[in-house]
Amino acid sequence: MAIITLTTDFGLKDYFVGTLKGTIYKELPDAKIVDISHNISPFNIQECAYILENSYKSFPDGTIHIVGVDAEPTPENQHIAVFVDGHYFITANNGVIGLITSEIKPEKVVEIKIPNPDHGSFPVRDVFVKVACHIARGGTLEVVGKDFDELRDLRGFSPSVTDNGNKISGSVIYIDNYGNVVTNIHKNFFEAYRKGRSYELSARTTKIKQIHHTYSDIINFDIEKSKRKGAGDVLAIFNSANYVELAIYKSDLNTVGGASTLLGLDYRDTVTINFI
Amino acid sequence: MAIITLTTDFGLKDYFVGTLKGTIYKELPDAKIVDISHNISPFNIQECAYILENSYKSFPDGTIHIVGVDAEPTPENQHIAVFVDGHYFITANNGVIGLITSEIKPEKVVEIKIPNPDHGSFPVRDVFVKVACHIARGGTLEVVGKDFDELRDLRGFSPSVTDNGNKISGSVIYIDNYGNVVTNIHKNFFEAYRKGRSYELSARTTKIKQIHHTYSDIINFDIEKSKRKGAGDVLAIFNSANYVELAIYKSDLNTVGGASTLLGLDYRDTVTINFI
Amino acid sequence: MAIITLTTDFGLKDYFVGTLKGTIYKELPDAKIVDISHNISPFNIQECAYILENSYKSFPDGTIHIVGVDAEPTPENQHIAVFVDGHYFITANNGVIGLITSEIKPEKVVEIKIPNPDHGSFPVRDVFVKVACHIARGGTLEVVGKDFDELRDLRGFSPSVTDNGNKISGSVIYIDNYGNVVTNIHKNFFEAYRKGRSYELSARTTKIKQIHHTYSDIINFDIEKSKRKGAGDVLAIFNSANYVELAIYKSDLNTVGGASTLLGLDYRDTVTINFI
Repeated sequence: MAIITLTTDFGLKDYFVGTLKGTIYKELPDAKIVDISHNISPFNIQECAYILENSYKSFPDGTIHIVGVDAEPTPENQHIAVFVDGHYFITANNGVIGLITSEIKPEKVVEIKIPNPDHGSFPVRDVFVKVACHIARGGTLEVVGKDFDELRDLRGFSPSVTDNGNKISGSVIYIDNYGNVVTNIHKNFFEAYRKGRSYELSARTTKIKQIHHTYSDIINFDIEKSKRKGAGDVLAIFNSANYVELAIYKSDLNTVGGASTLLGLDYRDTVTINFI
Repeated sequence: MAIITLTTDFGLKDYFVGTLKGTIYKELPDAKIVDISHNISPFNIQECAYILENSYKSFPDGTIHIVGVDAEPTPENQHIAVFVDGHYFITANNGVIGLITSEIKPEKVVEIKIPNPDHGSFPVRDVFVKVACHIARGGTLEVVGKDFDELRDLRGFSPSVTDNGNKISGSVIYIDNYGNVVTNIHKNFFEAYRKGRSYELSARTTKIKQIHHTYSDIINFDIEKSKRKGAGDVLAIFNSANYVELAIYKSDLNTVGGASTLLGLDYRDTVTINFI
Repeated sequence: MAIITLTTDFGLKDYFVGTLKGTIYKELPDAKIVDISHNISPFNIQECAYILENSYKSFPDGTIHIVGVDAEPTPENQHIAVFVDGHYFITANNGVIGLITSEIKPEKVVEIKIPNPDHGSFPVRDVFVKVACHIARGGTLEVVGKDFDELRDLRGFSPSVTDNGNKISGSVIYIDNYGNVVTNIHKNFFEAYRKGRSYELSARTTKIKQIHHTYSDIINFDIEKSKRKGAGDVLAIFNSANYVELAIYKSDLNTVGGASTLLGLDYRDTVTINFI
C-alpha cells in the first residue's frame, strides 16, 4: 500500500495530528503514515514549498502527500489533487507545491468535489484524508473531481538578476535548526548566470568569495588544529537542497548563536551575488 | 492488532518516548504505535483532557490509549485501566479522561495491580506498557486489577451560568499552535442556554456578536479584496472540537502575533457570553 | 525485519527527517522506523550519548540505530558501524556512543567504506541509510568496511573524586522537559564511593541529604494535605536512567519554573556530594 505523508503547520502539541492519523487508520488499517513536518510556520507558503520540494522525491513513486497549510477552502483557495513526477499531492491551491510544478509539468490536476463534505474548520481531516484514502486504495483522480487548469504559482520565490546579468539578488527563505540561513538562490540558477566567473556573495556586512559543498570544506586538516578554521567560522554552502546557505561551522545555538543571529539575517533579508 | 496511542507531557527531546516505543516493540513486534501528543504542558490535566477528548474518537474501536501525564502512583493517584466508548485508557486517576467519562459512562474501570511492578520513577514504561500489551494481545481488564469506583472527575473545567441563565462565564483552557484562544464553552452548552437569542461575547476589551463555523466565514468574497475582512481580523468560531475559540484570521506569529497576544488573553482568563 | 531508530540534532521542522524516512522506505518498503529524538542540541555529543544510552536497551536485540549528530566525515571524524550489546550503531566517530562502549566492549567496529558515496553535506541520508538498509537486509559489517580500532571515548563526562574518596564532584549534563537537572553522577558510581555512609549533596545554595527513587517519595501521605511536602518542593532522585537528578516536585514551567531556573543550575554547573 502507498505511503501517505503529512506536511502541516499544525504543530505537535494539539489534537490535530493525532486525529488525522486516527482518521486514516480507521479507513485504512494498514496505512503507512509518515510525518514530513508539522512545524511549518503558520500559513507560510514559501517554507512549506521549500520543505516539500526537498523531501517528496526521496519517497517511492506513488506516495500520497497531504499538505495541510492554509487549507480552508474559499472561492479563491480551491481544494485540488495533483499527480506530478510520480507523486500525488492533496492540497489547497495556494502555491505550496509551486516549486515542484514550476519544474515538472503535472500529469493531472483536479479540483476536489466529494459528496456531502463536512463544511467545518478541519478540511484536512474531513476532505484531504478521504481523498488520500481513495487514492491509496487504488482509486483514480477522475473520481475525485474534474480537471482544473488554474494551478497557482508560488509567488515571489525566485531571485532576480540585474546589472546585465552580473548580479543576482536573492533573499532569505528559511532558517534551519542550526540557525543557518537558506536563500532562494538555487545552484542551477547560480551556475546559469555565473558562466565560470569569480563572484562575491554579500549579506549585510558579510562578504564571501567561495561557496562550498560540505561544511568541513573550510577546514585544512593538514595544518595544526589551533591554526585551522573551525567551530564558529562563517561559510557559504550549496546545502543538501542545492540552495545557497550561509552557515556557522558547528554553530552553538545555546551559547554564541547561529548564522541568523550572528550575521543579523532574518526572513526576507537580501543576499546578493556579484559576478566579477 | 489494536493501535496503541501515546499522550504524554514527556516532550520530544528526552529518551522517554523512544524508550516507551522500544519497550512496546520488544513485547509486541507487530504493534502499531501512534503519537497523539508528547507536548502537553507538564502536569496540565486540563490540556491533556481537552486533547484526548478530541482525538480518541477518530481512532478505531478497540484502540488502547496510554496517558503519561502525572502518572506516578500514590495513595491518591491510583493507576487505572478504563474501557469507555469502545476505547481503552491506561492512566493515573487524575482526571485526564474526565471529559470523556463525564459524557459517556465507562463500561469497566479497574485499579491496576500487576505482579512485581518496578517501583521506580518511570511507571508509564514499567506499568502502563505492560497493561497495554496485555490488552493488545487480547487480554481482559479483569486480569489487570479489580473493579474500581472512585474515578476522579476533571475539576474546574465547566463554565458557569449566572444572571438567571442570561450569562455564561467561561475561561481560556488552551492556546493552539496559531495563538488562537480556546475556551471551555462547548457548542452544546452554549446552545442549551442560548435558546435562539442574540448574544455578545466579551473577552477583555474584545466584543463579538457572532460565532462562526469556519475561519473564512468572515470574508465576503463578493466584494473587492482591499475592502474585505482578511488576515489579521478577529473572529470567534466553534472550532473543530466544538469549543468557542477566539482567533485571528491567518495569524502570523512571527510578525504581528496571534489572538492570545493581540487580545491579551492567557490561560484561565475569563470569557463571557451575555444573551440579549 | 529489524527496527531502524533515528537519533539526530536535525529538529522536526526541516525536510531532513522526512527525507531520511522516505529514503529508507524507498530501499526497504517494510522497514520499521522509530524516532528516538531529533531534538538533541546541535552538535551536543554529551546529550546525545546520554539519550542513546538510556533508550537503546529498551529495543529488541538486532535493532539498528542511526545517529545523526556531527556526522560530516573528516579525517578526524570517521564514519563507523559498531555492533555492541546486541545492537548496531551507525554514527560518526565522535563519542556519541561512548557511554555504551565504555561499559560494554564492542564485538565489532568497522570504518564505513561504501562504493561511490555522495560527498555532500547530508551523509546521514547518503551513507548511514545505505549501511542501515544493508544490515536490515541481513548484510554483515565486513561488507561495510574494514576493522577499526580508534573508537573515540566520550570525553569529560565522568565525575571526579577527591578528598581521599570523600567527595564526588559532578556536573549538569542535561535539563529535561520538566526543567529537572540531570547530573553525570550515576547511582553505581555513587554507591561505589559511598560505602554506606551518610552524605550531603550541594548545588549552589541547595543542600540535600537524601536521594530518592520516586518523585513522590518526599510526600508523607499519612499527614493532612496542607502540612505535607508537595508541588514546588525540591528533591534529589536517582532518575529512571539512574543518574542523580535535582527536581522540583510537579514543576510548573509556565508559572514558577523548574529546578534549572529555581535553583540557578545550567549545563556544566557543578554538583558535589560529600560523604560524612
